[in-house]
Amino acid sequence: MSSTSAGGTVRLAGMTTDNKTIVTQALQQMVATGGTDALEPLLREDFVHHKPDSTSSTKTEWLADVRAVPIDRLRVEILHLLADGDHVMLSTRRWLDGGGPGIAAVDIWRLEDGLITEAWELVEPLADVAANLAWWRADAAA
Amino acid sequence: MSSTSAGGTVRLAGMTTDNKTIVTQALQQMVATGGTDALEPLLREDFVHHKPDSTSSTKTEWLADVRAVPIDRLRVEILHLLADGDHVMLSTRRWLDGGGPGIAAVDIWRLEDGLITEAWELVEPLADVAANLAWWRADAAA
Repeated sequence: MSSTSAGGTVRLAGMTTDNKTIVTQALQQMVATGGTDALEPLLREDFVHHKPDSTSSTKTEWLADVRAVPIDRLRVEILHLLADGDHVMLSTRRWLDGGGPGIAAVDIWRLEDGLITEAWELVEPLADVAANLAWWRADAAA
Repeated sequence: MSSTSAGGTVRLAGMTTDNKTIVTQALQQMVATGGTDALEPLLREDFVHHKPDSTSSTKTEWLADVRAVPIDRLRVEILHLLADGDHVMLSTRRWLDGGGPGIAAVDIWRLEDGLITEAWELVEPLADVAANLAWWRADAAA
């Protein structure tokens, strides 16, 4: 039954690897190795990374953004992991060892044939949470 | 086959209502009616709403927070909707008609027997997206 699970599975050379496993292994390897070498081959060449303000990055641009983070100090706690069809949603808390309070982040990944083809990311710094609750107060007067 | 879909379905008096439908109908009715009357009966009495900074609200507290928003001016665009087991993830853009740029938000809902029992929310004001990309620069020096 694993080939028909909700996770959107894909068969590769007789193996069944589900999309949740692909995404979490990429993250774990990145944090463990402190680099993007394990992430790069999982992204399709025409990968697009979307920001909430409708800007986006190519594969090369996004990998450069990821490499700019001091990954050796990065700590990641996985809070939620959902898969539905071709999409995986990963909710995490991320912070720098010895640094500030960090962020909550949600990444939504779209996969095709075992490769990540598209991603959407939301970031909320923990220091902003109280102010963000009343976002509409500032916006109402805009 | 609808009773075995990935959405986590529940049978009520012979009907099959999936969790995605419950969550989106609650949202649509709230925006359409400008109030929380349609939302209230969908939340279990011991409902808890979690913020990323580990604060939380009870059902009564959260409904009061929702009612504080000028719902008659609220506009909501659904970007992603995923369901996996008991959980539904709803990614939206929200703004006030005639107001500022608004927010991107992700809500994760946990349902039991057709009622919403728990929620986690992330908010990113669109005006903050560029600054949030480099969250670790501020945190590294903290």
